[in-house]
Amino acid sequence: MTRTLIRNGTFVTVNDEAPLVRGFMGFDNDTIIYLSDKEPDASVPFDVIMDGTNKLYMPGLVNTHCHAAMSLLRGYGDDLALQVWLQEKMWPNEAKFTGEDVRWGTLLSILEMIKGGTTSFVDMYDHMNEVAQAVELSGMRGCLTRGAIGLCPPDVQEQKLQEAIQFAKDWHGKADGRITTMMSPHAPYTCPPDFIEKFVQAAHDLDLPMHTHMSETLHEVLENEKQYGLRPVDHLAKLGLFSRPSLVAHAVHLTDREIETLREHNVHVSHNPGSNLKLASGVARVPDLLKAGVLVSLGTDSSASNNNLDMFEEMRLAALIHKGVSGDPLAVPATEALKLGTVNGAKSIWLDRVGTLAVGMKADFIALDVDQAHFLPKSDYVSHIVYSASAKDVTDVFVDGKQIVRGGEALTLDEERIKYEAQRRFELLTN
Amino acid sequence: MTRTLIRNGTFVTVNDEAPLVRGFMGFDNDTIIYLSDKEPDASVPFDVIMDGTNKLYMPGLVNTHCHAAMSLLRGYGDDLALQVWLQEKMWPNEAKFTGEDVRWGTLLSILEMIKGGTTSFVDMYDHMNEVAQAVELSGMRGCLTRGAIGLCPPDVQEQKLQEAIQFAKDWHGKADGRITTMMSPHAPYTCPPDFIEKFVQAAHDLDLPMHTHMSETLHEVLENEKQYGLRPVDHLAKLGLFSRPSLVAHAVHLTDREIETLREHNVHVSHNPGSNLKLASGVARVPDLLKAGVLVSLGTDSSASNNNLDMFEEMRLAALIHKGVSGDPLAVPATEALKLGTVNGAKSIWLDRVGTLAVGMKADFIALDVDQAHFLPKSDYVSHIVYSASAKDVTDVFVDGKQIVRGGEALTLDEERIKYEAQRRFELLTN
Repeated sequence: MTRTLIRNGTFVTVNDEAPLVRGFMGFDNDTIIYLSDKEPDASVPFDVIMDGTNKLYMPGLVNTHCHAAMSLLRGYGDDLALQVWLQEKMWPNEAKFTGEDVRWGTLLSILEMIKGGTTSFVDMYDHMNEVAQAVELSGMRGCLTRGAIGLCPPDVQEQKLQEAIQFAKDWHGKADGRITTMMSPHAPYTCPPDFIEKFVQAAHDLDLPMHTHMSETLHEVLENEKQYGLRPVDHLAKLGLFSRPSLVAHAVHLTDREIETLREHNVHVSHNPGSNLKLASGVARVPDLLKAGVLVSLGTDSSASNNNLDMFEEMRLAALIHKGVSGDPLAVPATEALKLGTVNGAKSIWLDRVGTLAVGMKADFIALDVDQAHFLPKSDYVSHIVYSASAKDVTDVFVDGKQIVRGGEALTLDEERIKYEAQRRFELLTN
Repeated sequence: MTRTLIRNGTFVTVNDEAPLVRGFMGFDNDTIIYLSDKEPDASVPFDVIMDGTNKLYMPGLVNTHCHAAMSLLRGYGDDLALQVWLQEKMWPNEAKFTGEDVRWGTLLSILEMIKGGTTSFVDMYDHMNEVAQAVELSGMRGCLTRGAIGLCPPDVQEQKLQEAIQFAKDWHGKADGRITTMMSPHAPYTCPPDFIEKFVQAAHDLDLPMHTHMSETLHEVLENEKQYGLRPVDHLAKLGLFSRPSLVAHAVHLTDREIETLREHNVHVSHNPGSNLKLASGVARVPDLLKAGVLVSLGTDSSASNNNLDMFEEMRLAALIHKGVSGDPLAVPATEALKLGTVNGAKSIWLDRVGTLAVGMKADFIALDVDQAHFLPKSDYVSHIVYSASAKDVTDVFVDGKQIVRGGEALTLDEERIKYEAQRRFELLTN
C-alpha cells in the first residue's frame, strides 16, 4: 500500500464544483483520497511526497477512436484523393499487416500517446491480441475491439465474428481492469445488415457495448439511402445497434432528426476533427450535438489520417473550427473542449471513475511543465491547456496511481526498441 | 570568418530543384555555400563540424503578422463575444501598456518564437523602439511597423504619423540588416481615408512597403461598403495603398473580383488561420488566392487570439481547414503549406535570400529532433513537418549563420528574467 502526496501543485480538475485547486493532491494506490488548497493534517500519513512546483496537473486525456497499428503508415501517400489513398496506399498495405506489424505499430502509437498525456484510448483493429498485450505492458487503459469488415464470403464473416467474440471474452476486465472490450461491425457501408445484427446479438449475449464508424462522408450517407432507403442513423437503429450502449465515430453528416435519434438512444459520439479535416470529410455538427445533450468526446483516428496522436490538438481543433465555421466565438469554449478530451471521453467508454480529479476518482492524471513562455502569463490555465499546450508539454503520467511516464521518459516501454522495430516493419511492408 | 559544416543531416530545403538532401550543408558566416548528399572535398576547409544525425534541417519559419507585446494578455478573457473581449478586456489594458510592458511582452513572444523555429516575423504595434531593441538583442529578423489607429483628433493623428515615420527611418536596415520597416495605417475601419493617404505618401517618400489589416470580419466589409460605397480592396486601391509594395493581414472576406485586384497589384496576403477561427472571423479563401497566383504566407496574429506562436500549427491549420471546408482532400497539400510558412513568408516581406536552403541563400535555418515516435516511420518528412510536428520539436536555430537556440535553449535571451518580468507586468496591468 502506497500513499503519495503532491505538494505545491496547480490542479485543473475538470470538476465543476472545484475547477482549480492550488495545493495538494493525495492518492492511495489507484484512488485519489485528498485534494485541497490546504495541507492534509498529520493523521493521514503519506509514504511518498512529490513536489508539484511549476507543474499543472489535470486528468489524463481519453482518445475515443483510434487504429493504433496504422502509425506504421504515417505520412505514406498523404495528399492524394481519398479513394486513391485508400485503394492504393492504405488497404494493400494493411492487408499485408501481420501480428508483428500490429504489435510494433501499436506500441509506437502507445509510446506517443502516453508520453503525450493520453491515459485511455479506444482501439478498433485486427490482430487484437497483440494490441491487448501492448496495452497491458504499457500500463495505460484500452477499450479494445476487433473491427470487422463484412464484405467477404459467409465463412470468413463467421470467422471474424467468432474472433471478435473470443477476443472480447478473453480480455474484458483484464490487466487489472484496465482493458475493456466492445463489439464492432466496422461501418454500415462495409457490413451487410445481417452481419451487423450478429454483432448486436453477440453484444447482448456478452453484455458489451457497440462501436462503429458512422456517417463519416456524405458519399457513404447517400449510398446508404440508395441501398437501404435509410440514412445511417435510422439504419443502425433498425438493426438494433443502439439497443446496446453505443459509441459511434465521426458522425459528420447528420440531420436534426438524426441528432434527436442519437440523443434518444443515448448514443455517444467520438468527434475526430483532425482526421475529418485532413480527409476532407467535412465539419461535424458538434455545437448542435452538444446543445441536444448528446455525449461528445474526441478521437484522433489513426495517425495515417491525422498525423499525430496529440489529444491537445484535437481539443484545440474542436475549440477552433466550430467557432470559425459557425461564426459564433462562443461555440465550444475552452472549458467545453477540455471536457470533450477528458471526462466526456471517460463517460463515452463507460469509465465512471476516470476523467476528473476528485476524491474517490481513479488516480489517472498527467502533469504539464508550465514554466514555459507559452503558458505565461498565469491568466487562465484552461485556456492555456486548450489553446496553447501540446503533447510535448507533458512530463509525468499516472494511471491507476502508477507512474508510467516520468520527466518525459516512458517507464513501461522500451522506446529505442519500439522506434527501431516500427521503422523496420515499415521498410519490410513498403519495399 | 567562420565556415561551418553539418554532416549526416536530413535537409528539407523547400527548393523544388532539390527538395530533400541527405548529407552535408556548409555555410560561411551568413551564407550557405554547400548543400549536397556528397561530402565536400578537402579544398574547402571548414572550421566547425556539427553532427546532424537524427536531425531534420529546414528553413526558419516566417511569421508575417503579429503583435508580439500582446502575449501579456494571453488567455485573458477568452471565449467572450468579440466586441466584449475587445472593448472590456483588450483595449482598456492595451491603452495602459507602457514601454516596459511592450518590452517584456515582446521579449516573451520572441522567446517563444525563436525556441519554436521562427526566425523572421512581422510586428505591428506601438512603442516600437522597444520592439526593435528586443529584435536586435534576440538575433532574429523583424519587419517592424508602428501600427496607427486614426480614430483620434488631428494633432494626435499627426503625432502618430510622425512617430511611424521616425521609427521607420531610425531602424530600417539596422541590426546588421536584420530589421526592416514598413508603414502601417491599422485598418480601413480604424483610419479615415486622408490618414491612410498620408501613410501612403510617407511610404513613397521613404521607399517603404505598406502593411495593414484588411477584410478580417464580414461586419467590417459591410460597414466599409456602407460608409465609403466600396469594399475594402477597392477602397484601399483608390487611396493608393497598393501603389506601394503591400502586405495585408487576414483578407478573409473576398469576392472573386477582389482576389483578381489583389493579384493585379501583387498584394501579399498574410493568412492567419488560428486567429480567424478563434475569433470566429471565418475561413479565408486560400485555395482561390493560391490558384489566382496571389502570394500567401502565414501569421499567428497575437497570442491573445491564437493563443500560441507555433508556426507549425499555422501550417497544419492551413493544410487542414481548407480541405475540410472545401471538401477537396487535395486543397493546400503539405508541400504548399510548408511554402506558406517559409519561402512565401520571406518573399512576402521582401527577403529574397531567406526561406529556402540553397547555395547563396542566407543561413537562416532550424533543426528538429526527429528521433521521436511522431516522426516515424521515415516515410515523408514534408508530411511529418506539416501534419505532425510542433514548435517543441525544434532544437537548434540559426539566423545569418549565428546560432541563437541550441538544444532548445535560447542563447541570446535571459529566459528566466523574461518569464519573471512578463508575469509581473501582467499582474501590474490587471490587478
